[in-house]
Amino acid sequence: MSRTLARDLHSHISKSVTIQGWLHKKRQLGAIAFLVIRDRSGLIQVVIDEPKEQAKLDGLQVGTIMEVTGTVVEEPRAALGAELHQPTLTILNPILDVGPIEIDKQIDHKPENLETLFENRVINMRNPKEGAIFKIQSAVGDGIREYLKSQDFTEFHSPKLLAEPTEGGAEVFKLDYFGKTATLAQSAQFYKQIMVGAFERVFEFGATYRAEPSMTTRHMTEFITVDGEMGFIESFQDILDILSGLMNATSDHLWTHCAPELAMWKATKPVLTAKLPEVTLKELHALVLKETGQDFTKEKDPTPSEERFITEYSAKHWQSEAVFITGFPASEMKFYHYQSPTDPEVAVRADLIFRGVEIVTTSQRENSYPKLLEQLSKIGDPEHPGFRYYLQAFKFGLPPHAGFGLGLERLTQKMLGLNNVKEATIFPRDTGRLVP
Amino acid sequence: MSRTLARDLHSHISKSVTIQGWLHKKRQLGAIAFLVIRDRSGLIQVVIDEPKEQAKLDGLQVGTIMEVTGTVVEEPRAALGAELHQPTLTILNPILDVGPIEIDKQIDHKPENLETLFENRVINMRNPKEGAIFKIQSAVGDGIREYLKSQDFTEFHSPKLLAEPTEGGAEVFKLDYFGKTATLAQSAQFYKQIMVGAFERVFEFGATYRAEPSMTTRHMTEFITVDGEMGFIESFQDILDILSGLMNATSDHLWTHCAPELAMWKATKPVLTAKLPEVTLKELHALVLKETGQDFTKEKDPTPSEERFITEYSAKHWQSEAVFITGFPASEMKFYHYQSPTDPEVAVRADLIFRGVEIVTTSQRENSYPKLLEQLSKIGDPEHPGFRYYLQAFKFGLPPHAGFGLGLERLTQKMLGLNNVKEATIFPRDTGRLVP
Repeated sequence: MSRTLARDLHSHISKSVTIQGWLHKKRQLGAIAFLVIRDRSGLIQVVIDEPKEQAKLDGLQVGTIMEVTGTVVEEPRAALGAELHQPTLTILNPILDVGPIEIDKQIDHKPENLETLFENRVINMRNPKEGAIFKIQSAVGDGIREYLKSQDFTEFHSPKLLAEPTEGGAEVFKLDYFGKTATLAQSAQFYKQIMVGAFERVFEFGATYRAEPSMTTRHMTEFITVDGEMGFIESFQDILDILSGLMNATSDHLWTHCAPELAMWKATKPVLTAKLPEVTLKELHALVLKETGQDFTKEKDPTPSEERFITEYSAKHWQSEAVFITGFPASEMKFYHYQSPTDPEVAVRADLIFRGVEIVTTSQRENSYPKLLEQLSKIGDPEHPGFRYYLQAFKFGLPPHAGFGLGLERLTQKMLGLNNVKEATIFPRDTGRLVP
Repeated sequence: MSRTLARDLHSHISKSVTIQGWLHKKRQLGAIAFLVIRDRSGLIQVVIDEPKEQAKLDGLQVGTIMEVTGTVVEEPRAALGAELHQPTLTILNPILDVGPIEIDKQIDHKPENLETLFENRVINMRNPKEGAIFKIQSAVGDGIREYLKSQDFTEFHSPKLLAEPTEGGAEVFKLDYFGKTATLAQSAQFYKQIMVGAFERVFEFGATYRAEPSMTTRHMTEFITVDGEMGFIESFQDILDILSGLMNATSDHLWTHCAPELAMWKATKPVLTAKLPEVTLKELHALVLKETGQDFTKEKDPTPSEERFITEYSAKHWQSEAVFITGFPASEMKFYHYQSPTDPEVAVRADLIFRGVEIVTTSQRENSYPKLLEQLSKIGDPEHPGFRYYLQAFKFGLPPHAGFGLGLERLTQKMLGLNNVKEATIFPRDTGRLVP
């Protein structure tokens, strides 16, 4: 048996082929039965007029695994441009139960329905439009990886089981580790900086854990971060250029490889400049005050409404749906940030806002051992095991470097135009959800 | 400033270039100083005769970050075929401390030195030969991913935070999750089977956690598994063919892309047949008895010495350093295994032994809901949240499928010919080690 996939059906017109897949839909019109069979590449319509073949379907439900041998007939009204006639059916795995949802129906992503969506994920991922989200997520990952490799970045894997918390102790998951306490990594920050010492340019696709009790459209307790770090930068601009390149390359990769899946969601290709525009926080506050009358000038971070505002503004005036916000106050930064000698009050940091949401945060790091030690000593003990090994990398030489963290699910979400990051996560985790 | 990398030096003979990197080695021979500068692509020799330039190095140690502008001179004795003369040095980050190990020296991987190796990982990864291991690991990942994508597999990410243990409860890490108990995933088994229901062919590179108190050369508490699963198989042979293809493609990818790094370890390209040979456990026991006199005929698994034996035997007689062992007793299998209708005593399973170590385990899974339910009911409660969602995938239709788990670090280890899996892990985790 040589199996033909849905996507290849059109090249077998008038020939006999064998397909395999799930019974996706069944409809009786008078003496004729119409089946839709789903395989990994699409949906195939099968027309059955033989009563003997129709009888094989008695009592069988959607999900039944079957093989169909029949003749491919051109049919302009079918999505594939062809359908199967005169079929012979073989039931490979009969399904007798009616599923909790109709796989054939488009799934509603209204906020009030999301919990039902996640609860039924095992089945609703079989809806082609729903499954498309995760094909696209896979391609987002490919696009990013391909681009970073083209820029000479090396991929690595850092451990997620850590000795003791260093940053933000309250939001860390703790576990018993053979009688000691271990914690789950909140970021790959220290590891990626350490790796710069050997490989200069590194990245990781890694799980990130946050014991944050926030239930928002942006937060989860487990998610995938693309962590990148780059040594021997001439200036902070180098990492912004990498991120501009990454956004453009990933968007191009997606629209080259996932056109049918993107079309299902009516996703529009992001409008992006080769070099993404930049706006300072101060300029943003002033713009918002001028254009909307809202006064956020005392805020040390852009507000969610400002993130939405600047995307629209940037799309209209700067031809880019992604925009860097710079000019954050240095006082808000972590101990490892690089203090600019010319403007010590302003952080060498940027947030990348894409379609209304922050998807990347990036900054330059302090690479001088004495300066880092001084900055660390204000907030923690350099002999703490969580800092000791990290500091070795600096004591024995790190070049000027900057890095970024990019949320894979958030980028997928915004490429598709979804409202909640969990819609772009196949099995989301939050304070209330550990299943499926 | 346009920076030239070590790997490009040979194409700038007689020209002036600027390089940047770490001071890797310093040697004074009479009035002349010889430096070796390391960048991400290699080592560059610099010859300094100017006393003024030499003086810039006073008190500076290995690890110092510097920029050197000089003339490229052909030098057949240098590894790059060229070196830098008449240099001007700029110190970007002076290092004043002497490191804990000599980066320039080859690092000893004797078993008794491994703890020292891991303790000093932050620095010893800068030794080019040591760093080569992790460049190779990155390329092993690329080779696998490229091959699986060429076979129409979709990559996914499953959560590692799970509700409650289902399999092997004793070896599971538990943590407090907002007042409930969560566990860390011991495998992506259930998720990859669920994913077959939508995508047919899936894979994940995911962290795997085992709270096993074993201190062997093969075990860690955290490692990366490549989990693959494939639906609509005609027979178990389909997944063995995928694994044969994967091994060959990955080996080819490595020897195409990492020749210099592999040469540092004197790694030899694996001898592999296009279709890897198979031997049953019974045949293996008989062979070992006949050839060595050792009687393992009562063992239900191959012993470590048998795994080493069969690799050598297979290389000699079957022209392959990778070999499948089949014919395991069905009684040893997990509840989800597929019971062969023709030979219910024998598991539809294979272990892939590569250079003396099991790197893959693969099996066919039961896909009939009533049969799976029956098998599960003997060992657990189908209503347990750890099983309930998993069972939905079967209740509403899964095709015949088989899958595999491949240890990324083990494969890297054996491609390089290392003795301990931890040598192929940048920051290994075991019962005693949570740092760096």
